[in-house]
Amino acid sequence: MKYSKNDIQEKIRKAVNDVRTQNPMAPSITNSVTINLVANAQLAVGGSAAMVYLPDEGEGMAEAAKSLYINAGTMIPVYGETLPRTARRLSKLSRPWVLDPVGIGLGGLRTELLTSMGTFRPGIIRGNASEIIALAGLWNAADVQESNVRGVDSMDSVEDARDAADALALFTGGAVAVSGADDYVTDGVNKVTAHGGSKFFPMITGAGCSLGGVMAIYACVEEPFIAALTAVNIYNIAGQRAEKACEGPGSFQVHFLDELYRSTPDDVAGSLFDMA
Amino acid sequence: MKYSKNDIQEKIRKAVNDVRTQNPMAPSITNSVTINLVANAQLAVGGSAAMVYLPDEGEGMAEAAKSLYINAGTMIPVYGETLPRTARRLSKLSRPWVLDPVGIGLGGLRTELLTSMGTFRPGIIRGNASEIIALAGLWNAADVQESNVRGVDSMDSVEDARDAADALALFTGGAVAVSGADDYVTDGVNKVTAHGGSKFFPMITGAGCSLGGVMAIYACVEEPFIAALTAVNIYNIAGQRAEKACEGPGSFQVHFLDELYRSTPDDVAGSLFDMA
Amino acid sequence: MKYSKNDIQEKIRKAVNDVRTQNPMAPSITNSVTINLVANAQLAVGGSAAMVYLPDEGEGMAEAAKSLYINAGTMIPVYGETLPRTARRLSKLSRPWVLDPVGIGLGGLRTELLTSMGTFRPGIIRGNASEIIALAGLWNAADVQESNVRGVDSMDSVEDARDAADALALFTGGAVAVSGADDYVTDGVNKVTAHGGSKFFPMITGAGCSLGGVMAIYACVEEPFIAALTAVNIYNIAGQRAEKACEGPGSFQVHFLDELYRSTPDDVAGSLFDMA
Repeated sequence: MKYSKNDIQEKIRKAVNDVRTQNPMAPSITNSVTINLVANAQLAVGGSAAMVYLPDEGEGMAEAAKSLYINAGTMIPVYGETLPRTARRLSKLSRPWVLDPVGIGLGGLRTELLTSMGTFRPGIIRGNASEIIALAGLWNAADVQESNVRGVDSMDSVEDARDAADALALFTGGAVAVSGADDYVTDGVNKVTAHGGSKFFPMITGAGCSLGGVMAIYACVEEPFIAALTAVNIYNIAGQRAEKACEGPGSFQVHFLDELYRSTPDDVAGSLFDMA
Repeated sequence: MKYSKNDIQEKIRKAVNDVRTQNPMAPSITNSVTINLVANAQLAVGGSAAMVYLPDEGEGMAEAAKSLYINAGTMIPVYGETLPRTARRLSKLSRPWVLDPVGIGLGGLRTELLTSMGTFRPGIIRGNASEIIALAGLWNAADVQESNVRGVDSMDSVEDARDAADALALFTGGAVAVSGADDYVTDGVNKVTAHGGSKFFPMITGAGCSLGGVMAIYACVEEPFIAALTAVNIYNIAGQRAEKACEGPGSFQVHFLDELYRSTPDDVAGSLFDMA
Repeated sequence: MKYSKNDIQEKIRKAVNDVRTQNPMAPSITNSVTINLVANAQLAVGGSAAMVYLPDEGEGMAEAAKSLYINAGTMIPVYGETLPRTARRLSKLSRPWVLDPVGIGLGGLRTELLTSMGTFRPGIIRGNASEIIALAGLWNAADVQESNVRGVDSMDSVEDARDAADALALFTGGAVAVSGADDYVTDGVNKVTAHGGSKFFPMITGAGCSLGGVMAIYACVEEPFIAALTAVNIYNIAGQRAEKACEGPGSFQVHFLDELYRSTPDDVAGSLFDMA
């Protein structure tokens, strides 16, 4: 369904407010580098966090929560069982879960698992441009160019990843968010470019991961496209404000969490975005 | 033994001071979400931290240190061996170790391990109200009501958990601390309600875990009930001060670590608590 | 080759600048306690971070990057395969990788792995005095006294570890850095004592680990001895400045990351050091 800008802003306002009043829990299976920031960002916007690694605990969390965040960073052997079992359960329950294909292209288990995740149709996919291009290629979702992932860094521009993002959204029937200087959020019908954020986002670890975790929080109260854009917007407005107040990446992260907590529904709905 | 309030305050003063002068090490087996804050809080009060995951390293640490912190969060498969072997050794050595039954009720391995921990009599048990009620049920320590755990969140009040806490304390012969808006600390004979803290504690991840880690530090120099209450008090006073200085959960955590470091023995002994 | 102080300062200036302009990636296999600070420190000086645990991912990262950081903290079972396979690949490719022998002396797997690492000749070894003495003993690199490791803490002075450090440097053909109140950096020919830093370094977790990670970043653009000293110097100058601005260990860590980011090539080259 194609929304007007007013529709979208009204839904964003409601999502921000509903999370603050309902305190929804979105569990995560996520990497050990940024796991603390994921949880703290989820709490700062008003949600609740719970992280697990074991297969039956992933399944239990899929049952207990309305959404769940799966981040493919720092793989450990048990993920070989945990990720498919959790994603299968999420899929069966039609939960709008969030996939973050961190490190795509590296390692045998990671490639096998990320390939298989296509079957379980994540409600939201979040990544940088190179990751989104690579995932579209891995799932044969589109004829895409070569991706240029380097470790966890994107070597492609968000512009380069728009077609891959649209194709992935049509493939899953959900939403896709591409993070970068500007952000692109699409469900294949609604296509938005969002502005703001900060030059410090790439200078702290976990800006992207925690954004994915916050998307899972909003996905507990709204549909995937709105949930993804609400998270993108609150990151853009809080990032801008934190940059003004900070003296470097250390104080940026501190102010950023404060600003996530302080952002009002109107702030988030009013954060700059253009519709295609 | 039943203490007077003066006795308790004198012992708290000594515990705070002894930790600052002796720098005792309390190792941990703890979750990956809040492991960094556990270590930093232990260092801020004057202790030393060392975290392990492997069975023989858990046993080695049980030998080397006067107390140890076991937190049942983010389970990994090796815990199936590490937790019982470490707890058995702690029990044999009569170490006053600290148990934090995070996530109780979730998953097969977690349930099996938390059940078995009853045999090894932790010196201190720390949890939120729902966790304490659930643990008392799991160990048949008391006829308790249904617990309402949700992920890592308590859906019960501290008041609701007092009987379960007292029963657990009598069961282990140690102390039990229930965290919440007010905190309840009991060894079955001495029963204290402590005040203070901050509305921001539930908005950062790890306030509870790091409190458990700090209890293990104080348990290196004092008996369980005093160690638990000293940790609760330093958290309450530092939390109050941090809340006054902060602008949100990001800066709260920063100020909180500073205030743990700055709190004097008199501050901690003077933090508000009532005796039953 | 024996450098003059001027040579060294010129090379340090260039290393700081090259990292800021080239944004080199130095992956890590490191402990879960301080993994976030390692990444954030690497980003703050201008590098890129990527952390892995699996054997083929370690090998893939050894191929993809110019240096890599291996820290023996929080061991998990898969390290038994990951560490030797990664180190063997690094050695074959002659990468100047960094070894941090955290927790040396504890546990069977750790001892086995740290023993085997000698074969793979790390370009840089970083540790506290007790760890360096223990590693020299483990590798029979020198007739050294007993080490006094306690968990992750040094019970020896940097002065006590100078002979062990020199011996290890001659053994590997690389550089060795001993962290403490003053720091000692040696390649067996060039021997430097560096001053500065902060009393708060031992009061936050990960000052040493993140220093090792930053050495790996500089090792992407300069030879081991210069890379190690550049990292030591930027830590010493940023630590001094952060201490002046902070009110305790919480705000120290925040200011420290800001100061890593703000330090100029001249600041780092000008940080105080003496040549033997």
